[in-house]
Amino acid sequence: MINDLDQILSASAKRMKRSVIRELLKMTQRPELISFAGGLPSPESFPVEQLKQVVVEVLDTDSARALQYSETEGDKRLREILVEKYRKEGLNININNLIISTASQQALDLIPKIFVNPGDKVICGLPSYLGGISAFATYGADLVGIELDDHGMRPDLLEQKMQELQRKGQKPKFIYVIPDFQNPTGICMPERRRLEIIEIARKYNVLIVEDSPYREVRFSGTPQRTMYELDSTGQVILLGTMSKIFVPGFRLGWIVAHEDVIDKLVMAKQNTDLCTSSFVQKIAAKYFDKGYFEPNLAKTNAMYKEKRDAMVEAFHRFMPKGVKWTEPEGGLFLFVTLPEYIDAEDLFKIAIEENVAFVPGTVFYCNGEGKNTLRINFSFMSKELNIEGSRRLANAIKRMIKE
Amino acid sequence: MINDLDQILSASAKRMKRSVIRELLKMTQRPELISFAGGLPSPESFPVEQLKQVVVEVLDTDSARALQYSETEGDKRLREILVEKYRKEGLNININNLIISTASQQALDLIPKIFVNPGDKVICGLPSYLGGISAFATYGADLVGIELDDHGMRPDLLEQKMQELQRKGQKPKFIYVIPDFQNPTGICMPERRRLEIIEIARKYNVLIVEDSPYREVRFSGTPQRTMYELDSTGQVILLGTMSKIFVPGFRLGWIVAHEDVIDKLVMAKQNTDLCTSSFVQKIAAKYFDKGYFEPNLAKTNAMYKEKRDAMVEAFHRFMPKGVKWTEPEGGLFLFVTLPEYIDAEDLFKIAIEENVAFVPGTVFYCNGEGKNTLRINFSFMSKELNIEGSRRLANAIKRMIKE
Repeated sequence: MINDLDQILSASAKRMKRSVIRELLKMTQRPELISFAGGLPSPESFPVEQLKQVVVEVLDTDSARALQYSETEGDKRLREILVEKYRKEGLNININNLIISTASQQALDLIPKIFVNPGDKVICGLPSYLGGISAFATYGADLVGIELDDHGMRPDLLEQKMQELQRKGQKPKFIYVIPDFQNPTGICMPERRRLEIIEIARKYNVLIVEDSPYREVRFSGTPQRTMYELDSTGQVILLGTMSKIFVPGFRLGWIVAHEDVIDKLVMAKQNTDLCTSSFVQKIAAKYFDKGYFEPNLAKTNAMYKEKRDAMVEAFHRFMPKGVKWTEPEGGLFLFVTLPEYIDAEDLFKIAIEENVAFVPGTVFYCNGEGKNTLRINFSFMSKELNIEGSRRLANAIKRMIKE
Repeated sequence: MINDLDQILSASAKRMKRSVIRELLKMTQRPELISFAGGLPSPESFPVEQLKQVVVEVLDTDSARALQYSETEGDKRLREILVEKYRKEGLNININNLIISTASQQALDLIPKIFVNPGDKVICGLPSYLGGISAFATYGADLVGIELDDHGMRPDLLEQKMQELQRKGQKPKFIYVIPDFQNPTGICMPERRRLEIIEIARKYNVLIVEDSPYREVRFSGTPQRTMYELDSTGQVILLGTMSKIFVPGFRLGWIVAHEDVIDKLVMAKQNTDLCTSSFVQKIAAKYFDKGYFEPNLAKTNAMYKEKRDAMVEAFHRFMPKGVKWTEPEGGLFLFVTLPEYIDAEDLFKIAIEENVAFVPGTVFYCNGEGKNTLRINFSFMSKELNIEGSRRLANAIKRMIKE
């Protein structure tokens, strides 16, 4: 039976690939190796003592609900808290515009589930978050990449592509963007760029999926308004998560959208996991209600700023000529561009010899480009290891540079 | 834009329906109403004091891992514990045969994701668990129902249907069964029946999905071997969950299967939610390691036995002639069959007047039959309310009985 497995798999299963990052991470378990490959928050950001207090309080006061099945839409109090936060920013939403998801990845699965038929076009950045691209591809989405510049997705190329698709009678299902500190580049779209993208989406009547895990992980510069707020017509679906600002191990995220879209997402989620853990939702709600969120986030961002600064400084000090990198105002990543003749996958092998690891950028390009790019995480390792790892990485690059 | 929503939805989204049970439950929120409609464990089964201790210990000793992202396959210790439990029963499995899922519903989503193309046949019981049927249908499965008798799915009808499909050149993707205390009927398949179903599955080279949420919720009679163990060829995929034996609000389940199937499920899960909450997995593992699981389960089952006994006794006392019901040795449900001329949806309205609620059985029939059946939960309400609710339900039925 099981020998025939390939014959009985669905088309969807045949499209699935093992995550390259996941396989790479297995190679980077040696203790002497400095890994910039993952996208993990620092454990120093976890508010352990406050959590102990909050969990005991939840179990003392609300165990019958915290341990039971709960509503598919999510815990009412937690949804109110998140809606209130957005309303303070200026978003005109209410509780019917927000559903809790089992972290952002579930949102990235539910959205193609309700929108994508095999062969449908989906627009994404070149490069763009691998977990998003990969989830869309599972549903048979045909990904169309649009190059970025220093301000994010290029509107001229987007417009050109939309015209081209229109001529062929094709309408993409949505444009996938990560406007704040994009994964992998760290780029934050200024408001003007956001508006340009929204205008094109409106002109061609296409949804925007605004994936926003890093929005609040900002160390410097001015917060930009969400595309959801700038649009205000229900054209944008906004994704948020606790994973980078609170606790990734809780698997807590949310989707903000027009309530007709939320309604469909609720049905899809019901078939997918019934509801997100009531326990972690109650803990999160209590944590916010006690006012613990903001101070811990401020502390975390101050720590990340130091780590980024240390890394950027080390890059300036150690990197040979011809290497470029982004210097983001937030998020978890720098993106490095090497001279065109260097393939980051070759560099990876040499870097491992130098005891430093990263993710080759090509995995983030749906068209297979980006061979000479790499993603560097600065949030997980200590400041000191960020410096030492940068030195090692520069040494590896120097071994490949032609003078 | 959002006015065109129906036009841009996927085929999958168009197949989704709001859960009937969910809508019914909204009607049953009045405090004076006794609801047998849900499928909730009793909050008295939640080990609150032990959890407080365990959670604090996890946070004190293992917070950096318990609050971080974790492996898609699941927490290693938790997987070891579950494998060890099954090995003691006689299953020949190792850690590569088990993946943690975000409760059983995720398993019921991942399995069609990797096997079902639109139009593929899937065999299920008449009746069968709504959440399973509904998840399969989302992927376009064409459900083929097989009637049950007192021992579960009828092998004669299954064989007949398999022959019929074979003649048409159709091979079902899998046979979906819930051998232990089936939802909704409460029926437990004896070993002989299990073997008959396995034999047919082998003959026609079709997978079996053995959904087993209630297996350990047994109050009397003899435990039956799992179909996974009885088969031993990798033809069976076994689903388990903590939801009925520990804490539903944790959203923790697992899948046992041939490691090639697990490998595909890992890829599918990665696109779906990356990993199940590390926090609740660490808590569950610690809870087992401290030996808290078995005594709490024994206490819970003793409580459920009392509740079932009270209800069965009340049924014997109050029900008019012509009403039949199952008297299961475990699980959470009785299944009631009314005289054929009574439609349970009509009865539902009268029952609501009598301040008692249930789920009309027809929602569990993929072919729309079962109009004269209903599902009754006995785990959530107290013993006293089980008796009083049975009295009210009998009154409602009497109002519809033709003498």
